Amino acid sequence: MGNNEIWLESLITKTPQEGRELAIKMARKSIAAIQTNPEIRKSLRNDYASDTAQLIASANVIAIEFQTIALANNYWK
Amino acid sequence: MGNNEIWLESLITKTPQEGRELAIKMARKSIAAIQTNPEIRKSLRNDYASDTAQLIASANVIAIEFQTIALANNYWK
Amino acid sequence: MGNNEIWLESLITKTPQEGRELAIKMARKSIAAIQTNPEIRKSLRNDYASDTAQLIASANVIAIEFQTIALANNYWK
Amino acid sequence: MGNNEIWLESLITKTPQEGRELAIKMARKSIAAIQTNPEIRKSLRNDYASDTAQLIASANVIAIEFQTIALANNYWK
Amino acid sequence: MGNNEIWLESLITKTPQEGRELAIKMARKSIAAIQTNPEIRKSLRNDYASDTAQLIASANVIAIEFQTIALANNYWK
Amino acid sequence: MGNNEIWLESLITKTPQEGRELAIKMARKSIAAIQTNPEIRKSLRNDYASDTAQLIASANVIAIEFQTIALANNYWK
Repeated sequence: MGNNEIWLESLITKTPQEGRELAIKMARKSIAAIQTNPEIRKSLRNDYASDTAQLIASANVIAIEFQTIALANNYWK
Repeated sequence: MGNNEIWLESLITKTPQEGRELAIKMARKSIAAIQTNPEIRKSLRNDYASDTAQLIASANVIAIEFQTIALANNYWK
Repeated sequence: MGNNEIWLESLITKTPQEGRELAIKMARKSIAAIQTNPEIRKSLRNDYASDTAQLIASANVIAIEFQTIALANNYWK
Repeated sequence: MGNNEIWLESLITKTPQEGRELAIKMARKSIAAIQTNPEIRKSLRNDYASDTAQLIASANVIAIEFQTIALANNYWK
Repeated sequence: MGNNEIWLESLITKTPQEGRELAIKMARKSIAAIQTNPEIRKSLRNDYASDTAQLIASANVIAIEFQTIALANNYWK
Repeated sequence: MGNNEIWLESLITKTPQEGRELAIKMARKSIAAIQTNPEIRKSLRNDYASDTAQLIASANVIAIEFQTIALANNYWK
């Protein structure tokens, strides 16, 4: 289905840990939405995985996505 | 209608996935509001689509826009 | 009136689209508050309008301002 | 009184416009808290006032501070 | 268990200080999720620990994670 | 006590001004948690105190921490 793939059915997760995994997935899907070529994405991967400034910037995105997920799940209380 | 085009009728979407798509659209429209020349935007596109730091910065914008959309939709509960 | 100009009477807008326009205005007014010389601002405009990293950073500011406006308007529900 | 000066008595302002002014003041005071030498701050001022990337980063700070102020004032409704 | 290790059982902590520690842990785990090789992470550590721009960017991530944790704990009131 | 020092007993402060001071302390403690050597931190201090981009990035962190503190204190109303 390519770009029409449904990958986000719900923001609800069973555990906080799964919420983290969803946050990472959301961050990755944003990048894939802009750089749509999977080959180029693969070749770029080393660029940020060994650049600490970019790793920290990625962690910033994950932190924001997780805020949304955690609130949606009422903090798994 | 050019710059007067109405592109944001509502923050309400049917699904979380559509909420993601709206977040990406909002981020893109912000850039179009500043760089109003579509030819220049097109020529700039390669600059950020193959620069991981800029891809991550774009994902940061999408994450913030999605926070707003998710809250507006009461997390699609 | 110069710097004493009143440009923000209210956060309430009729539509989401007008909310976006206000968010862009708020971002611009912040920059004008720091760089108060309109001639210099004009000369700087090309610097960021053709630099994708700065366009994305601008979109980040607009996303944050819009969060505030959208909440003030109860998401135009 | 120097560093002990009380500059933030309240987050409440009469108008949204005054809320913007307080947001700018808060951003400036943060910088003054880290770079405590007013002479150095003055000499640094040109660095960011003519650097668009830094102007945009400053606008990002103002947007976050304003979120706090706007919520504190219940959006001046 | 490697990548399947459960490290986030709950967002609830006994004290604000423990909330800070959890925020730091969350930021670190995000980086570990992207750069999965612990040897490379170790070698990268000096890059950001002595680069003030990256230390500040790390503090930004911690501040966002802590917002989520503090709200989940109702500010430990 | 070193790293086990308790420095955050509560998010509650008597005044908004004290809330600002706590926000600055929280930002500093994040940096200290990553760069644990106080001698190196001292030597790095000049790096960011005279670099406007880093001063602005620091103000961004303080703004986020203050959001959390202000909400915890119900905006000192």
